[in-house]
This record gives sequence, C-alpha cells and structure tokens, in this order.
Amino acid sequence: MDVESLSAFVDRLADTASDSIMPLFRASVSVENKSSGGFDPVTAADREAEAAMRKLIGEAYPDHGIVGEEYGSDRADAEFVWVLDPIDGTRAFITGLPVWGCLIGLLHQGKPVLGMMAQPFTGERYAGDGKRAWYTGPGGARTIATRPCNSLAEAALFTTSPSLFPEADLPDYQRVERAVRLARYGVDCYAYCMVGSGHADIVVEAGLQSYDIVALIPMIEGAGGRVTTWDGGSAASGGRIAATGDPRLHEKVLETLAAA
Amino acid sequence: MDVESLSAFVDRLADTASDSIMPLFRASVSVENKSSGGFDPVTAADREAEAAMRKLIGEAYPDHGIVGEEYGSDRADAEFVWVLDPIDGTRAFITGLPVWGCLIGLLHQGKPVLGMMAQPFTGERYAGDGKRAWYTGPGGARTIATRPCNSLAEAALFTTSPSLFPEADLPDYQRVERAVRLARYGVDCYAYCMVGSGHADIVVEAGLQSYDIVALIPMIEGAGGRVTTWDGGSAASGGRIAATGDPRLHEKVLETLAAA
Repeated sequence: MDVESLSAFVDRLADTASDSIMPLFRASVSVENKSSGGFDPVTAADREAEAAMRKLIGEAYPDHGIVGEEYGSDRADAEFVWVLDPIDGTRAFITGLPVWGCLIGLLHQGKPVLGMMAQPFTGERYAGDGKRAWYTGPGGARTIATRPCNSLAEAALFTTSPSLFPEADLPDYQRVERAVRLARYGVDCYAYCMVGSGHADIVVEAGLQSYDIVALIPMIEGAGGRVTTWDGGSAASGGRIAATGDPRLHEKVLETLAAA
Repeated sequence: MDVESLSAFVDRLADTASDSIMPLFRASVSVENKSSGGFDPVTAADREAEAAMRKLIGEAYPDHGIVGEEYGSDRADAEFVWVLDPIDGTRAFITGLPVWGCLIGLLHQGKPVLGMMAQPFTGERYAGDGKRAWYTGPGGARTIATRPCNSLAEAALFTTSPSLFPEADLPDYQRVERAVRLARYGVDCYAYCMVGSGHADIVVEAGLQSYDIVALIPMIEGAGGRVTTWDGGSAASGGRIAATGDPRLHEKVLETLAAA
C-alpha cells in the first residue's frame, strides 16, 4: 500500500466534500427525517458530498470498495474499502455549530489503515495512519499526540449525549462519568480529535455505525491512543466504543464499563 | 451615548482579549479550582484577558464601571458599566473546543445596551445594540436576524448541560426539552449566537451570572429575539434564563417552564 499517495488522495476527497458542504452550512437547507422514529437529520450537503467523493474514488481507484452513510455499500469485500460519513454531527451542522466533521476512512483487508476528520468551517484536519497522526489548520501543520493521563479522577471525558445510550448501557456509561474530573457533551467526531491531539482523555459512546468511527481509529492510534469496543474488541464495526488517549487509562475505562 | 465609537471600542477590547487568550488555547495551561465545591476551571488566559480589558477601559473611559468574572466589581453604580467574561465556556476551552467565547457587555443605567461574543479561534464575532445585530468572521460581515419559529415542536433548543439545573428546576427544563424537535448540549455563549443568527430557536439555562448573559442580550434582541428570566423579568442579573429567536415562541417557552 502506498500510504503517501493515498494520504494525498484523502486530502483531495476532503477538498471535494468541503466544496459540496460549505455553501450549505448556515444556509437554509431542507431537513428530512431519515428514520421514521427518532430525529435523524440529513441534508442536501451530506448527499452531495458523498456523491462527489464516490465519483472521485471511482475514477482514481475503480477496484476499491465504498461504504457510505448516505448511499450504502459497493464492493464491501474489496481489498481496500473507503468508509465515508460526509457530515458526522448533523445536529451540530443544522444548528450552526462548527463541531461536525467530514469523516474519510480506509480499510485494508478489513483493518482501518488511514483516516481523516475534516472541519471545513474552521479549516482543521486531523488525520493518521495508525503509526503517526497529524493536524493541519489554524496555527499550521504539526504532528499530534495524545497526552498522558493514567487516572480516571484526572480525566476529561466526552460523549455526544447521555440520551443516546440504550437503557441497558446507560448505568455503565454513568459509572465512568461519575469517576472523571470533567464530562463534556455534544461534539460527535470532534471529541475523538481532541483526544488525538491531547486536549481530552476519553470518549465513550454506544450505537455507532462503522462510518462513525473507522476514519478516527488510525488517527487516535497513530497519536498514541486506543480505540476498542467496550469489551476490548475491534472498533471497526462500530457499536459500543471507548477511545482513550493513554493506553494505561483505556484498561481502567473498560474495567469501569464492565464493573456492574 | 455614542454607540458608534463605543461599538468600535468593543472590537478593540475583543482584540486585546484575543491576544491574551489565543497563545494559551490548546496549549498546556494550569487549571486551578476556583470553588472548593464543583469543578470550575479558570485559566491564566481568563485572568490575563480580563486584566488587559480592564486596563483599556480604565484608560479610555475612566468614569465607567466594570464587573468582571475574574476581578469583581469597580464602580458598579456608574452610569456606564462594562460586564466582562473573558472566557465563557471554560470547559470547552480546556478541552480544545472552539465553542467558548469572550463576552463583552455594556450597561447604561443598568440596562444592557451593547454587547459582543468574540470567538478568536474561528474569528467570529456576534454583536448587537438592542436595535440591530451583526456578525463578522468567515464569510464576511453581515447583519444577523433570528428566524421565525412559532412552535415548540419545530424548535431547536440549546442548553449547556442538564446537569447544571438545580434539582427543583430540572423538571421544568425537561418539559421544554420533551416538547422540542431537537435538543443540543454543551455550547455556553455560542448557543445564544446561533439563536441570534437564525440557526437555532431557544436557549434555556439556570444559575447564570450577570457576566454570562449581559453581553448577549443586545445581540439577541437586536436580531429580533427575546431574553428574559423564566418568569419574564429582566435577564440582566442572570439567574434562570430563557432566550428565544421568535418572540411568539418566547411566550410558549415561559408557559411551558411554568406549567408544573
């Protein structure tokens, strides 16, 4: 695998997605309900950006597979599979907040090997390949790393919303929340970027799809952190996810989640 | 009152505060506990920015009063009183999120007449004088206005965290949350700016200080919205606050809060 050229291609995908999305951010957009149940907003921007990325991938790497939030799976059993969520954090997007992100991940034989979160309004990009991780945006370009934090009592925790946990999982999450120094809600993919760049320590979520997390795994792990399911398995399929900057702390998070 | 020159002065104060704050955003900062009870982080940036703004005000308007989060009150009974919170949203600040803001408000005979929220990382400023409201930042400068929304069932609601409501107020807040289309947590002053610029409809909070809200009142009202206490009184002293983009909806929010 030529990581260099694939990494440059990820930036091209993010450019394309940004071009589709930004004219619609903070503009009046039509919001439709995707599911008949709870509120799951999806915008024209979401669809346009994924279509544009799929077109670029099809042209550059016609044998690669694609899994996307909006348009489903093509060749999901290919050696290389792109995993796309054009706007992760649609609630943030439709309320004008700059804490949503465009997620672009790449699986090689089912394993996340490259990923990026791009935030076009702030101009930030957080990316990684599992061995290193990097940032570009205000302040320039730099390598990023998680920060040491070996104690729950000193840790800063993120989750999108306590209301997103199934009833059976909520007490497990709440044990972690009660143990930490600070808990912060409401930032979706941006939370993982703050852990990857050493500004926070833990993300705990449930009910994630693969496209919510695949792009973030090579960034967090490249920055020195860990991402697994609550029972320590691969996070690549989504589900109940814990991400931690300090690998020593990760064990404590998983133990606390399982302590019932 | 010369609103023009005072408005230019507010931009100077925001520039000064930004210069103090930005070197410390996403840097390692010492976090101390201000209260012996809950976690109330305050950073060196907070103190430096307020000191710098106080110095500028003292030089330009020596007879004006100042109320600040960090250094308390000077001449709080003056005709003009500046109300300052250098970093509203310290939890966002210390976890690297760009949804904190520098709040600069001006009271004339106790009434909020001018105010700004400045977000130096994104370069956004939201300001108003009670008659009009304006934005500068990515995308340029423009007048802002709230959006029409006359139904709780269609409204997007913000609050910083349900855990910040006193036990006696939580059920009242929850009635509003259950009635709206979408509830979003965790954005402090940034929430009021999204209401003022027409991207969301309601903010409901409790336990605010005057310096948390004074700067935002002339912006929301200048954009066409309303800000009061839960019982419809002046919001200038803080407390339990409801802000709404559409004045018709404001009545419904207050009724729902009082419906117990």
